[in-house]
Amino acid sequence: MRPLIAIDWGTSSLRGAQLGAEGQVLATREFARGILSVPPGQFAAVLDELFGDWMQAPGALCLISGMAGSRQGWQEAPYCPCPVGFAELGQHLLWLQPGRIALVPGLSCLGQDALQTPDVMRGEEVQVFGALRLAGRDTATLVLPGTHSKWAQVENARVTRFSTFMTGELYALLSQHSILGKTLDLNGAFNEAAFLQGVDKSQTTGSVLHQLFAVRTLGLFERLPAAALPSYLSGLLIGEELRTQNRQATQGPLILIGSDSLTMRYTLALRHMGIDCQSHGAEATWAGLFALASAC
Amino acid sequence: MRPLIAIDWGTSSLRGAQLGAEGQVLATREFARGILSVPPGQFAAVLDELFGDWMQAPGALCLISGMAGSRQGWQEAPYCPCPVGFAELGQHLLWLQPGRIALVPGLSCLGQDALQTPDVMRGEEVQVFGALRLAGRDTATLVLPGTHSKWAQVENARVTRFSTFMTGELYALLSQHSILGKTLDLNGAFNEAAFLQGVDKSQTTGSVLHQLFAVRTLGLFERLPAAALPSYLSGLLIGEELRTQNRQATQGPLILIGSDSLTMRYTLALRHMGIDCQSHGAEATWAGLFALASAC
Repeated sequence: MRPLIAIDWGTSSLRGAQLGAEGQVLATREFARGILSVPPGQFAAVLDELFGDWMQAPGALCLISGMAGSRQGWQEAPYCPCPVGFAELGQHLLWLQPGRIALVPGLSCLGQDALQTPDVMRGEEVQVFGALRLAGRDTATLVLPGTHSKWAQVENARVTRFSTFMTGELYALLSQHSILGKTLDLNGAFNEAAFLQGVDKSQTTGSVLHQLFAVRTLGLFERLPAAALPSYLSGLLIGEELRTQNRQATQGPLILIGSDSLTMRYTLALRHMGIDCQSHGAEATWAGLFALASAC
Repeated sequence: MRPLIAIDWGTSSLRGAQLGAEGQVLATREFARGILSVPPGQFAAVLDELFGDWMQAPGALCLISGMAGSRQGWQEAPYCPCPVGFAELGQHLLWLQPGRIALVPGLSCLGQDALQTPDVMRGEEVQVFGALRLAGRDTATLVLPGTHSKWAQVENARVTRFSTFMTGELYALLSQHSILGKTLDLNGAFNEAAFLQGVDKSQTTGSVLHQLFAVRTLGLFERLPAAALPSYLSGLLIGEELRTQNRQATQGPLILIGSDSLTMRYTLALRHMGIDCQSHGAEATWAGLFALASAC
């Protein structure tokens, strides 16, 4: 196995790992050099500046997943339409330097409604396949919480469908830019009881558009302290995301992939609803890229 | 009947009308002098500056509804808890100058859940009672679209319950500050077909947190032109607000109160869903304040 430089190049950050022959992580680096900070035509120079030393290893291979493969990135790697298996992902790598540097394509998924509402992911597909390897599964529901949370269904090692939820972005917008921001205290520690009250509220009838306003009035009427309101808001939004996922229609275990702080919240909410789950962190990205490298 | 100066003093704007003995509107004025622009202690001076000439009429009475009666306003007029009839509203006026200037209190409504999630309105209660007078009804469902849209149920001339929806604020946040803003063209004219496609989508299963992301992908995949996306987003959000209003549980006709541009959208969405409605504009405010003045 050749030395692998695994890169996850997202919108706002750039993470890389140097992997050994067995896929073990030898070193990692992270930079605030997401694609939005890179001028057109400068992607190769930035990669060389930040990972050039690792790339000097004889026979080094560099695989890059994430938004670097988008229209706003290094070069556009066209989406692979679902259903997609691991092998197809490997066949559609976009080689920037043949045999040396490649972009991993994202996935697309067309809705069944009149507008065929499409959905897309870039970077998460590598984490999905990596987490499946780590869990030793080929059928599972994978959840990737974040700014744009993704739910992917994998059946017999193929991603059959997935959906994106604007949960994280709405949390940021509402807590920082809306009227709700005037009542809540963002410096408060995570409050599990308030979070679960939000989750409970989100499972009742009524629209989240209404439930959100209660974050303001619960503060005004001193039903919850200002420092507990961010946790209540988080519970409302994560609960709304979970509410519409019909667990009956999914197959296999539920696997969360993300940072500890986010997967902790989803785990709390899911267990509160009687749903079991397991979690993986950044290692899913490295495992997915290592498996791709092994196959190409 | 004494000369009435009817004032609607909101968060961002201040509107006033001079009303004749029969309630007819003699003149109106509007200023960008909402309560947020008024330093503490300066409310009397601002009122005098902008409406002092009208107030010089012998025996003039000034009734002020809206956020001027909130904690951040001129003085706090405590909420009247639902159910509330018109007479109780009149009995709880907060007199700033006895017999001459009074603040109209807002309404509160406690939820039946564990947290007794409260809801509040300030200013809309006057519009509700005014629109009922104009429509000659004492039982109806009243909808006041806006930044924070209100649905109020009135039975036998009493507001029995109401709910707030953050529809308008979310539309502004999402179109101006979220990733959706990057794909949509806010200069496009209102597109009825795209709006109704959004309404239809909002009535299907699945969370609005997911449906919102499609505003981005419908643009990326060129399913809808960028200039039609704001109308689609508006249809999604208004449709989500309408979706959870159980029309079976409401009584009387559905009456919209608001600007022409907003009531037009709600009327389109409601008729598309087979629900009839009627509309009132600013005259509902003046009719409500006139009726209060007649009773005090």
